[in-house]
Amino acid sequence: MLIRRAEEVAGQPMQMPGVRGVTMRLLVGREDGAPNFSMRHFTVEPGGHTPRHEHNYEHEILVLSGSARVEENGAYHEIKAGDVVFVPRNVVHQFVNEGREPFEFICLVPTEFDCGNGTCQPTPGS
Amino acid sequence: MLIRRAEEVAGQPMQMPGVRGVTMRLLVGREDGAPNFSMRHFTVEPGGHTPRHEHNYEHEILVLSGSARVEENGAYHEIKAGDVVFVPRNVVHQFVNEGREPFEFICLVPTEFDCGNGTCQPTPGS
Repeated sequence: MLIRRAEEVAGQPMQMPGVRGVTMRLLVGREDGAPNFSMRHFTVEPGGHTPRHEHNYEHEILVLSGSARVEENGAYHEIKAGDVVFVPRNVVHQFVNEGREPFEFICLVPTEFDCGNGTCQPTPGS
Repeated sequence: MLIRRAEEVAGQPMQMPGVRGVTMRLLVGREDGAPNFSMRHFTVEPGGHTPRHEHNYEHEILVLSGSARVEENGAYHEIKAGDVVFVPRNVVHQFVNEGREPFEFICLVPTEFDCGNGTCQPTPGS
């Protein structure tokens, strides 16, 4: 059993094209022995945003603090602390922090994707 | 894309032998189309506890509020808001709320387990 303080996990700047002001903390991941899914904590600074992209695996998200505008295939929604978001595979999505405080959320991904012919790819950031 | 308020999801009393004072809210589950894992919210009232059990699938947990004593195969740990817990498969575990406020946490499980010979079982509460 692994027990750790979320706030003590080292934050890594999210390094992808189209990202601004995003830090990721990998709370439980493949290196911890997670066999199926990984839990990450994200902080998006005011004015920051995650990449606008899509991929063939899902996200399950719980917003912990702040608010954001989330895109869903060209439509936009406002989300805030206490909201749950399920982003199915192959949906274009982006989280933009238009507020004045950090936008914090946890985001779960499967540890592997693109499974076929007996092989899978490790999910980025898992 | 599914967006919902966590607090507005209907709570279900956890009905298993060995449970006391536990309510579950299924935030994202199989019925929502979650293909790999499910996110649940649990509230354990003061004096309440989850079942003492083990199973061959994992938990990934983030404590949102309160505190608890968690068992790990006969050893005990104290956990509180902001702690992350990874419970690997086949570890005897139980969460006991010995505090004066509700103990709230999210707990992720795979949607299926016991996979073999081309079949799987749906995970309880997913």
